This record gives sequence, structure tokens and C-alpha cells, in this order.
Amino acid sequence: MPIPAANLYPPFNILRLSHVEYRVTDLAASRAFYVDTLGLQVTYEDDQRLYLRAMEERGHHSIVLVQADKADVGVLGFKLYDEPDLDKAAAFFAGRGLPVDWVDRPHMGRCLRSRDPWGIPLEFYVKMERLQPIHQQYKLYNGVKPLRIDHFNMFSADVDASVEFYNDIGFRVTEYTADDETGKTWAAWMHRKGGVHDVAFTNGLGPRLHHTAFWVPSPLNIIDLLDLMSTTGYVDNIERGPGRHGISNAFFLYVRDPDGHRIEIYCSDYQTCDPDLEPIRWSLTDPQRQTLWGAAAPRSWFEEGSVFEGVEPQPSALKAQPIIAP
Amino acid sequence: MPIPAANLYPPFNILRLSHVEYRVTDLAASRAFYVDTLGLQVTYEDDQRLYLRAMEERGHHSIVLVQADKADVGVLGFKLYDEPDLDKAAAFFAGRGLPVDWVDRPHMGRCLRSRDPWGIPLEFYVKMERLQPIHQQYKLYNGVKPLRIDHFNMFSADVDASVEFYNDIGFRVTEYTADDETGKTWAAWMHRKGGVHDVAFTNGLGPRLHHTAFWVPSPLNIIDLLDLMSTTGYVDNIERGPGRHGISNAFFLYVRDPDGHRIEIYCSDYQTCDPDLEPIRWSLTDPQRQTLWGAAAPRSWFEEGSVFEGVEPQPSALKAQPIIAP
Amino acid sequence: MPIPAANLYPPFNILRLSHVEYRVTDLAASRAFYVDTLGLQVTYEDDQRLYLRAMEERGHHSIVLVQADKADVGVLGFKLYDEPDLDKAAAFFAGRGLPVDWVDRPHMGRCLRSRDPWGIPLEFYVKMERLQPIHQQYKLYNGVKPLRIDHFNMFSADVDASVEFYNDIGFRVTEYTADDETGKTWAAWMHRKGGVHDVAFTNGLGPRLHHTAFWVPSPLNIIDLLDLMSTTGYVDNIERGPGRHGISNAFFLYVRDPDGHRIEIYCSDYQTCDPDLEPIRWSLTDPQRQTLWGAAAPRSWFEEGSVFEGVEPQPSALKAQPIIAP
Amino acid sequence: MPIPAANLYPPFNILRLSHVEYRVTDLAASRAFYVDTLGLQVTYEDDQRLYLRAMEERGHHSIVLVQADKADVGVLGFKLYDEPDLDKAAAFFAGRGLPVDWVDRPHMGRCLRSRDPWGIPLEFYVKMERLQPIHQQYKLYNGVKPLRIDHFNMFSADVDASVEFYNDIGFRVTEYTADDETGKTWAAWMHRKGGVHDVAFTNGLGPRLHHTAFWVPSPLNIIDLLDLMSTTGYVDNIERGPGRHGISNAFFLYVRDPDGHRIEIYCSDYQTCDPDLEPIRWSLTDPQRQTLWGAAAPRSWFEEGSVFEGVEPQPSALKAQPIIAP
Repeated sequence: MPIPAANLYPPFNILRLSHVEYRVTDLAASRAFYVDTLGLQVTYEDDQRLYLRAMEERGHHSIVLVQADKADVGVLGFKLYDEPDLDKAAAFFAGRGLPVDWVDRPHMGRCLRSRDPWGIPLEFYVKMERLQPIHQQYKLYNGVKPLRIDHFNMFSADVDASVEFYNDIGFRVTEYTADDETGKTWAAWMHRKGGVHDVAFTNGLGPRLHHTAFWVPSPLNIIDLLDLMSTTGYVDNIERGPGRHGISNAFFLYVRDPDGHRIEIYCSDYQTCDPDLEPIRWSLTDPQRQTLWGAAAPRSWFEEGSVFEGVEPQPSALKAQPIIAP
Repeated sequence: MPIPAANLYPPFNILRLSHVEYRVTDLAASRAFYVDTLGLQVTYEDDQRLYLRAMEERGHHSIVLVQADKADVGVLGFKLYDEPDLDKAAAFFAGRGLPVDWVDRPHMGRCLRSRDPWGIPLEFYVKMERLQPIHQQYKLYNGVKPLRIDHFNMFSADVDASVEFYNDIGFRVTEYTADDETGKTWAAWMHRKGGVHDVAFTNGLGPRLHHTAFWVPSPLNIIDLLDLMSTTGYVDNIERGPGRHGISNAFFLYVRDPDGHRIEIYCSDYQTCDPDLEPIRWSLTDPQRQTLWGAAAPRSWFEEGSVFEGVEPQPSALKAQPIIAP
Repeated sequence: MPIPAANLYPPFNILRLSHVEYRVTDLAASRAFYVDTLGLQVTYEDDQRLYLRAMEERGHHSIVLVQADKADVGVLGFKLYDEPDLDKAAAFFAGRGLPVDWVDRPHMGRCLRSRDPWGIPLEFYVKMERLQPIHQQYKLYNGVKPLRIDHFNMFSADVDASVEFYNDIGFRVTEYTADDETGKTWAAWMHRKGGVHDVAFTNGLGPRLHHTAFWVPSPLNIIDLLDLMSTTGYVDNIERGPGRHGISNAFFLYVRDPDGHRIEIYCSDYQTCDPDLEPIRWSLTDPQRQTLWGAAAPRSWFEEGSVFEGVEPQPSALKAQPIIAP
Repeated sequence: MPIPAANLYPPFNILRLSHVEYRVTDLAASRAFYVDTLGLQVTYEDDQRLYLRAMEERGHHSIVLVQADKADVGVLGFKLYDEPDLDKAAAFFAGRGLPVDWVDRPHMGRCLRSRDPWGIPLEFYVKMERLQPIHQQYKLYNGVKPLRIDHFNMFSADVDASVEFYNDIGFRVTEYTADDETGKTWAAWMHRKGGVHDVAFTNGLGPRLHHTAFWVPSPLNIIDLLDLMSTTGYVDNIERGPGRHGISNAFFLYVRDPDGHRIEIYCSDYQTCDPDLEPIRWSLTDPQRQTLWGAAAPRSWFEEGSVFEGVEPQPSALKAQPIIAP
């Protein structure tokens, strides 16, 4: 299907992606990974939960790690522009027959909990506890020097439908992969905050979360992380990279946390705030869309992902992805 | 005066700064500077005008150089969100008793020309001719590898008044310098597009344009430009840097074009799209606000600027700036 | 076999590797690769030959490209310390029953041509035409900004024997891979000039040249080359990388020239000038010796190499290399 | 005076500079600076002494800090090639009427202690306790990630005479500044290990130590140190930089330790191992020799230095240095 035109006046104003809740099976092991290795900063912890922020963030958290029996994804969080947007969002989701729950969240104000039509758990809020800036406390910088959460990437069993729904709520497509034969959209990158994406969808067994990405200052920080992980027992947690995606132009590295949740470390995308920015189309047959430089990705990268709590992923009707390598 | 609260519902929607018109006395010399040295790309030229864009930009131009008898600044351009915003902007400026002219601009759609209350020439538009992406044509990257226009910095003879006016039209303060004794605002940084600023104002003989800034990928590109300028006859055009501002956290370099127009090369600021982002206050007595690392700036940097066409700058009522060095 | 002790008083004083002659089948295609893409500087050319130097080099050339019917390697060149060393070298090679020819080379003084015991063509000289420094002519920097030739890496059918011979003429082992079961040396890195290597030998069908390496300022230059090659028709010439070798700690990229000659772009090794520097031993079963970060190398990288003119490579008696990937 | 020709066969073989002993008035404050801020690694400490090495070094120490009543420099250390060189060195110094003392040094083998003709305390050795490599223990990298000691820079009251003496013992001039009017050498850079210098001499009240330099991987590490020092109470210890010297092409930063001893952080010089490398001449009237980019140095940088223990510095007969800035 053709990519829908940018929705200039969505029903409510989503500012940006905000946070993810990962359920993990060994909180101490996750702490060693996210805090001691990646360099995220602890803003609250007890024996069941760990709240983290990146160096530039003043909201209380962008990752919540929760001790659980099974590793999955609790929720994806988004910040709205202003309080009335919360009520408009509730009306929108109710109008679509989707759940509308007002939930209590520590460190957050009013919080609307719903799901997208395929069951992805979403929460929306306007106010989160604000913390003092630490971006100039350089003594705290550590690991990969993560600056801010950048995007969520999800498997979808019907990317055209996912694009249509998220376009309805204001996300705008910046780049996409199309199947030349069928005209179907294979993958799409959609933003609210003016980068290449806040959310992306790729064809596959879905819904599942492919990865959460953090933005870092430069490729050299990614090289530093590779050196660190390679010599502190995390070499097997390095899954793919470093490399550059044709799509988004991002310099990337993919690593896996102790439960297999995938984190992308990322820099070098571009500004997209113009609402008349033309989406860039890539052909499914062009291998450079995934890897500008030609290095193959491992099979795990194409196939594995984190399930969302309470949602059984469904297979896509589209043919299998043309995997390039191992 | 206290910094005004963020104006969440401005009268029209300014998306971002867009372009500047510099009037120059030797177009060939300016071309050698902006194209051959900085690495901006020519999108149109004749013997009177040169239109340039940076590598990431798809709008037709972010700098226009115009051959003139006298070097000054023709206009500062801003892109609005949608066509109705143009009419709302016209109504707003008319309501303030400011000029409202609809002008013809090559490569642009409807264009509203006005001035701010101190005479700074402004123009607003929604549509500009769109060009093919070149951000992945790496063969074209050159000079400092400029990615996009980032902000305008202006001298104002009354910063509190400037902040109030630009806040009225939706710009939000991210950082500012206050005089502890008088409570007056000495300088302020204000954004629309989600970085530290689209516009900034500093106390001084005003209005004048202190500089236009371009964003580059990393500090190493700035070092490359310093090496290049130092060995191609431009060493005297290097005015200040490299360094880091306390305010904005930006890694910076200031260079002067052949007419003395100042260009900042810039990277490493941070994301500001949260409307509840608390402005960071710096004291006028804290020298690290200007230079985190302590290196002094030359006197010219504090005193010199480009005048706007047709506007006589006025002295500020505030005491002289505490210049740190030479 | 155990690695031999450093030979502190070799029979003649080799200063460093100096140059390689590649025979190529399409000189214009090679020029596009080495000059326009890698950024080497032409110091002489006619329709049969192209002499190139890197940015930091003041000797006339470090690569000679010669038009030929068949792509192979003409000679590996080494610079000696002083004129008497040339005569001592001649005596040494004669004493070993190896060829001793005094040849005329353009742009060079007295030149001794010989071969190592397995037929690798070697030439030694003291004086080469000296050129003006260009390392501060930053306008000339281009492509990957190659600074200097760094090392030759060769396949050897008997690495222990190669190490013994090159140790006899003063090369000192810095790192090596040993087969834990047999005690045989699988690969060795040997230097004269104070880096990890001027020459290296790896077990395989030999003698063949695996690659010639050039040193660049930082990993970011390697990323720039990847972006450039990926978007100028050279994506298939990118063979392996970017990555870090455990051995040597080098940040690397391997590319293939139009004839398949392999060039390594390289930075980040370490200073080795202490004659009592202990060689670092790596086990053949440790995959991090080749790839600290765990990314697999393609089969071509393990198997393909350039033959030396007039020498038929011989198989190694050792078991096949444990190839990690594709 | 003209720069002397390279001395190809010096009386003994100096391999490289090795270590410096700084006497400091507050060992704890010095530890906070060198270890916690610069990132050097402790190899031995007690309440009177601190031995440090950089990340790439396997010798036991490159800096010794000794608690003392007065801050000065105890000795400059150099590593010789082989044991016979120690005896040849003793003979050379005795022949020049300079002191020859065999001293006991912890962690070192035979150690010859002498002074140069102006009183600079020198020590020479062949064997120092060797430590395990840590260059791939990336968890230890910290501060500016110092890789190795690079050079000593000294004030000399008679640079021509200093050059002659150090040339006699094998140091070779790579670059120098000459006074066009008098023909006197104003400053000279001299190496043994194949970089731009192991020692340098600048005209001034001498002998005094201007600085000791450490080599780091890239300019970004220097930027990291600036950010760290600026926000941990060391902003006043930043004296000059970042910048690039015309001479040596080095990217530099100068910082002062708590006693005022000056440390240069440094990268980007070039390979100089060719004995026929032509020294590069700079005119005293060319300001780019000191600062390629044109940024002025503070007066302290030209005038201040560390005295050597037991030596009264003498004024130079040459006219005062043309100081560029503040």
C-alpha cells in the first residue's frame, strides 16, 4: 500500500517516545549490564525495580527494569504535549474500541494505559518527576555515554496496518522499505520528535519488540563500548555491528541484555521536523538499505525479539525476509 | 525580569529557523569561503546571487549570498508548519503594528515579510522548493561537512523585551544568563525545533546578528576545518575556538567570512522538545557559562556583529559585558 | 617451536618496510581506487606506472602500480639504515645462497634485489628521492587520509621457518598465535620500526601477500572511507570490518583493489621499541585474537591472497585454519 | 648555528625517554590529579612515593611522584638498548667531565646517574621491572586514557649548545625554530624513538623542565579531559589548548598539576625513523609554528617551568620571546 500522507492534525499531540519497561529474570545481572556496562544512571532502585535515565534526560526514567519470572516487555511509554492531550487520547482509544485505563505509576502524573490494535501495551502521560540536569557532570559519564532514548523498533505481522494506525495518531513516515512485486510495505520508520524515528515496524512474527535504541555522541563511543564488552565477559552479547544502516543513515551497534532484550546504540541520523519531508523509499531487493557497507547481519538479528507481556505474536502473511548472511 | 513561562499555544506555529540572506561585497570571495572551505553545496547561482544548502537539508537553501555594495544581513527566514499559520502570522504582526508584506521569493511559495519590534527583518513561509536528498552522497562531503543550519544569535539592546516578544510567538527559553544584581536577563537561548536554540539574544548594541550556526557531526570535523583554514590562507578568519560553551554544552568554533559575517560551527547540544523543560539559569559572574574550559574569547567576539539592512543599532542600557580576555 | 629470542645484533640494519610494487591489469581503474578513493598522492605517473605516497611520507613512493597482463606482486621494499648496511645485506644473502642483484630503480639509489628462502622478492636500499613534506597541506587530504605505509602480511607454508629467517635479519616478534597441541607457530607479527609489525606471517598456501597496510589517524577516517566506498560503486570491494583485532589491538578495515590485491586500513596499534618487549602469545583456539568483538570474517579473507611474481605458492603442512564464519 | 648533521653512530644507544621523577608537596593531591583525573595506573605506592604507568607501558613506571618540601624535578630517565650501552654511556660522561654515579633504584636494574653540562639530572638504565600488559583491559581506561610517555620539553639558556650535546649522544633534530637575524636556534625538537621528539629545548631561563607529554589515542580523549577537569574543580589547571602546533603537527592540551608541573596531552605527530629525515625549519617570526590555528597562548606558558633539583636556572643571552597573546 502507498505510504499515507503526513497527518498534520492528529487527534492528540504525542511529543516523543519516553520509556520502556523490561521484565527481567535477574535484576542484579541486568544492573551490571545497563548501569556498569552501558552507563545508564540509576534514579531509583529497590529489590524489585530499577529506574534508569540517560545523561541528557531530566525526566525520571527512560528504562524501568522489573524482576519477573519471565523476560518480556511490560509497556512502551510516550510523553504527550499537554494535559488535554491525555483526555483526547483516551477518547481516541475508546473510539477505536481499545482499552482505556487510568493507572498509577510511581514518579509520574496522570497515566493512560491502552494497547494498539495488535496488543502492544502503550502508556501516555504528560508529567513525570523532573530531575536535575547531569549532562555537564562529566565525572558520571561511563560505558557508552548514553545521552537519551531514541526509538522503539517492533516486528509487525502487518506493517501496512501498523503504519496506518500510527499515522492516525500523528507519527510521520521518514523512510520505508517496499516490496516491488506486491507493493506491500515491508518496514517503516516513523517519528514525532524530529529524528528519523520514535517507532519503527518491520515485517515478521509480531507484535514483538525488536529493540530499544539509545543515542550517543559519536561512533567512537560505540567503539569504546565494543572494547569494554569484549574484555569484561560480554563478547557474546554483541550481536551486530558496528555498521551503518542505509535506512536512517545511522551508525549502529546491537547488543543483547542478559535476558536477550536487544538494545541499539546509535548515532548520526538526521533532522526530520519538516512536515513536508518526503519519505525515502528503499526496495526490498536493495541490501544496502540494511547495511550500507555490505556486512552481513546474523540470523538472530532478523528472527529474535522480545514479546510483549500478555500478547501472543502472530506470523506475517508476507514471504520470508531475504536474509543476507549467516 | 523572570523568564516567561513556556507559551504552549502560540498564535502561529513556527517549525524552525530556515535561512539567512547575507549581503556580501565580493561574491567570488564568499563562494571560496562558503563552498570551497566550509563545504556548503550550491543549489543555484548567477553573478548576483548564490544559494546554498547543507548536506542534510532538502529545502532549496539555508544561506543566500547577495552581491551588494555593503555587507549586511538581508533577512532571517523561518519555516511555518502549515499554510493557515502564514495567515495567522500576518494577523499577529498586523495586530502588533508591525509590517506585513507578501513578497515574491525565488524557490519559495507564499512568503510573509515583516520585522520584529526592533527592526530585525523576518520572513515566514511554508513551502520551499524541495531537492533530492544528498546526505548519503558521501563523495560530496567537504570542508567541515556541514549538516544543517542550527540557529541565529543576535545582539539585543533589551534582552528581556526580546525574550518576551519571541516567547509570544512560541520560542521557549532553554538557558539564560541573569544579572544577579539587577535581575535583568543578560542573554537567552530560545528554541522551536527541539535543540537548545533556533534564536538567541545577547545584551549589546542591537539589533545586530552575532552569528549563524551550522551543525556538524563531531568535534573532529571542526578540527579538520581548523587545519584546512590554517593552511589555505584563512588563519585570520578563525576568531574563537575550538571550545565548549557552558551554556548549551556546545562544542564550538567561530569563523568570519570575507566580509566579517560570523559563522559558528557547532555540535553536541541536547534535545529540548519537552515543553516542561526547565530553563537553566547561569549567573553573569560565572565565566564557565561562556567557556566551560576557561579559554578566553577575543574582544572582537564580544563587540562585533553584522547589521541588519536598514536598521541602526542602538546601545543597551545595561552595563558593559565583563569581557574575560584579550 | 618456541619464538626465538630477539636478535639484538642482526647482520645488517633494516630500518622499516618501505614500499610494494603491485602489478595490475587496468592502471586507470587502479588509479581511481588508490588515488581518488583511498587518497594516496601521485608522485610520478606515465602510462605504464604510477608512484604513490601517503601524506606523511617524504620518500618518493610507498606503492608502485605497474600495468601488467596479470595481477601479482613485483617486490617488497625495505629501507636500510646506512650505506654499509647494503653491503652487509648482500654478504648475508650471498652467504645463505640467495640471489644478490644490484638493480637500477627510478627515484632510488643503490638497490639490492634478492629473495627470501621461499622466493618472496625483496629489495633493500638506503637512499630514495626525498620530497617536500605535505603533511600540513590539509587541502590535499582526501579519502581515508592515509598517513604512511605500515606493514606487509604474508601467507607462509611454514611460519616457524619464516619467523626464524626474519628474526635472523633483525625482525622481532611482538605477538604470535600458537597451536596448543603441536606447539607450532600459526602466525607471527614482527617489527623493526617500533610498531606491532613491519611484516607478519600466517599459516597457509604460501608464499603469498595477504595485504599491505596503511596507517590512518583515527577510526573515524575508516568510517569515512566505508561511507565513501559504499556510495561510489565500491561496496563489493569492502571485504571485512570495521573491527578490532585482539592481536595488535588494531582497529581495521580490509578492502580489495580492482585486481583483488588486499589493502588494510589500520590505526591504534602500540609502541614496541623496547628490545625486551615480551611477545604476547595467543592460542589458536581463542577467536578473540582475530576479532576482539566477535564479528566473523568472510572465507575470502582467510583464503585469498596475491601471488608474488615468479613464485608458485606451496600448501602448508598444518591443519586447516579454524574459520569462524561464513 | 646550523643544525648539526644526524649523528648516525652515537657513543651509546639510547632507545627512548623513559620516566620522570616529580617532587611534589602534597602526594594525595597529586594522586587525585594523575590517577583519578588523567587516568594513569598505580604500580606501587607508599606514603612517600607513587609509581605510575600509562596504559600501553609494560615497564614499571613512567612517572614517579615523591613527597617533598619543595616542588621540583628529581631526574629524567632514559632507557638504553643493551647492557654494554650503559658502560659506554659511563665512559662518555666521564670523558666529558660529567658525574658518573651508579645508583640503586627500586624496580630497576643497573642505573647510571649523571647530569648534562647545564646540570639537568639524567639517569640511564637497560632493565626495569616488566609488568603484564593492560592495554586491552578496557575497564581500566579512565580520564584522558593516557597510552605512553612521549617526550620532555626543556627551557635552555643556550639552545644551540643543548642541541650539540644531545646530538652528540644520538638525538636527531626533526624540527627547529631559527632566528632569521642572528642565525641562532631558538628551539629544537630531537628524537630517538621515531616520533617528532623524545626531548625538546626552547630558549629561556634554563635549565628548567617545561613539560612532560603523554600520548593519547585521539583529539576526542583530550576533549573528554577538558570536560572532566572543567567540572571537577580543575578548570584553573587548564593552561592552554586544545590546539595544534605548527611544529610537530601535534594536537595538544597543556594542564598543570597541583604543584604547577606542566603536563602536555598530545596526539597526532608523525613517524621520523628515517635517519635522512630533513629537519623542518620554522622562522621565529612565524606565529603558526606554535599555534597553527592562531589561538594565543597565555604568558604563563612562555615563562613558567619546573626547576631541576639542585640546579639554579640561568638567563638566556637571546632577546625575549615574541609572546603572541595575553
